[in-house]
Amino acid sequence: MNRRSDVRSDGVRPIAWDPQAGCLCLLDQRVLPARVEWLRVSDCGAAADAIRDMVVRGAPAIGITAAYAVALAARNSYRVTATGWRDALNEDLTRLAAARPTAVNLAWAVAHMRGLFSGIDGDPFPPLLAEAERLHQADIAANRRMGALGAELIDTRCSVLTHCNAGALATGGYGTALGVVRSLWSAGRLERVYADETRPWLQGARLTAWELVEEGIPVSLIADGAAAWAMRSGKVAWVIVGADRIAANGDVANKIGTCAAAACARRFGVRFMVAAPTSTIDRDCPTGEAIPIECRDPDELLRFGATRTAAPGAEAWNPVFDVTPADLVDVIVTERGVVRAPDTAGIARLFA
Amino acid sequence: MNRRSDVRSDGVRPIAWDPQAGCLCLLDQRVLPARVEWLRVSDCGAAADAIRDMVVRGAPAIGITAAYAVALAARNSYRVTATGWRDALNEDLTRLAAARPTAVNLAWAVAHMRGLFSGIDGDPFPPLLAEAERLHQADIAANRRMGALGAELIDTRCSVLTHCNAGALATGGYGTALGVVRSLWSAGRLERVYADETRPWLQGARLTAWELVEEGIPVSLIADGAAAWAMRSGKVAWVIVGADRIAANGDVANKIGTCAAAACARRFGVRFMVAAPTSTIDRDCPTGEAIPIECRDPDELLRFGATRTAAPGAEAWNPVFDVTPADLVDVIVTERGVVRAPDTAGIARLFA
Repeated sequence: MNRRSDVRSDGVRPIAWDPQAGCLCLLDQRVLPARVEWLRVSDCGAAADAIRDMVVRGAPAIGITAAYAVALAARNSYRVTATGWRDALNEDLTRLAAARPTAVNLAWAVAHMRGLFSGIDGDPFPPLLAEAERLHQADIAANRRMGALGAELIDTRCSVLTHCNAGALATGGYGTALGVVRSLWSAGRLERVYADETRPWLQGARLTAWELVEEGIPVSLIADGAAAWAMRSGKVAWVIVGADRIAANGDVANKIGTCAAAACARRFGVRFMVAAPTSTIDRDCPTGEAIPIECRDPDELLRFGATRTAAPGAEAWNPVFDVTPADLVDVIVTERGVVRAPDTAGIARLFA
Repeated sequence: MNRRSDVRSDGVRPIAWDPQAGCLCLLDQRVLPARVEWLRVSDCGAAADAIRDMVVRGAPAIGITAAYAVALAARNSYRVTATGWRDALNEDLTRLAAARPTAVNLAWAVAHMRGLFSGIDGDPFPPLLAEAERLHQADIAANRRMGALGAELIDTRCSVLTHCNAGALATGGYGTALGVVRSLWSAGRLERVYADETRPWLQGARLTAWELVEEGIPVSLIADGAAAWAMRSGKVAWVIVGADRIAANGDVANKIGTCAAAACARRFGVRFMVAAPTSTIDRDCPTGEAIPIECRDPDELLRFGATRTAAPGAEAWNPVFDVTPADLVDVIVTERGVVRAPDTAGIARLFA
């Protein structure tokens, strides 16, 4: 699992189950693109750490990782107590679900897997692993479906702008926003992708650019501040992003900077698309106000690696997500269909 | 000129004339805040290089540096030919004026100094140096006036957001946008400054944060992408920025990312102020369309120091300024007064 070719054998895949070793393999996204390294995870605590430390990131990828982590937790718990395994893993699962607060897919996956416990007789590992693998494959299929639906909305050959990484690396494979990009490219209707570098973690520079270069799709990296200028200069016709959580009214939590891109798109006549699976929709959140926004270590802004870049004595505020109001979103694309001008009724129709 | 205390003796000053050595001293802004180093410049070519390489940056500071550089050019030219010095320095001045394209203050200062040539009899250096020093002092006085005028517009204690560095370091001293910030702080009406880090050159993290920490003004550094979220979360009431060139209709060229901040401010109910001296206004540019936008080396985005951060094979587009349409600007503050809801008539009134 540690040769570059493994990454490419079936497209970029950030998550893989190793049946020989019986462990989960996570492509370490902290060190890309400089190094392609896999982290081997064989218990739930290590998976929670990997999510918290952003070895794996992106709402769907976090959800899939969590599903495998629940299977690992059950395996280890069952080895200790064949009758009491359900109770014994409660603490692990609570910690796992809390590893990062904003993406709803994490809590969704843990709850979904936990919902299977009562129906399990005997060793819980085989059925839970099978379900994690099913979710993983279903995510890739959903992304391919979203890619097709999203690309259909763009009928003229054009360039698009994306923010952060909502690609294969953020999902089981293929990607949400970059799934649309891949479909558009296959259809011959994509000129070029402008990728926001996405400070402070540089997901755009490190991950999105890497994925697109691997696919041979032309990509121009830009400073986050240049997105509005790319729009105003007529360089892009669409902004396409993913989502970490979508409220019942269509408000979209996504990487910090998304809300700015949406406001600028509206102002400068560029269309704004969100591509996300329905597992990202949190119908218990009536609006974006209810979505918890993670703030990470100020050092992500104050330092670059070991080098302090900011003036000594300066503080930093480092929210890593923001909420784009639904009225700035032109269309949400899910595996169940598209919602134009999203609102509560439109989102509800996806679940009817 | 190389001890830290020299910087503080009369507030932060990025440009100083050394009468003993007969040379211009420029605070090297490329290495701040890690090191306080001064570059000594004794000819026009070295000054042009310093402007191009961003030893000194910020529209007013570039203008002042250019004024001193013209005096140096004349001194050196006069040494070669006491009668033909005006012709002999033409090439130097053309190169100087072209060192960076966007800030109009550079061309303005060169033209202004050149306009004095015909009235000079004998050694041109003393009168030209005196004029450069006068422009330098006038810039500081203009900044203090703008600071007072801008602060008057903000009657409730609040926090503000700024982009890039329009501070003492970008001017002769005191600053334009940060001049307003300093005045507001002196008046007890400033809570905190949110400073965009300002990729790719990190003027916010390196320069604005440094200036504000030196003054004891509370500063929180944020990712450029977080500016909209700071506005939408109600953290700031005003955005205050400087300008590199203002067109006759009030369109504002400033650091890349300014246009996004203005669009988000309008959308999220935050007011948007531009503070800039009238030397920044280019009445020969009818609108922002006519302002040349500098694109710099893609490596500023693809690398961090010696480290390649972006995926190998990725390209980058690195425009370092953008144009904010006048209708997104609530008020322009100059040393001659303020222009609310700027348009061609409002800008013209400043020169009536």
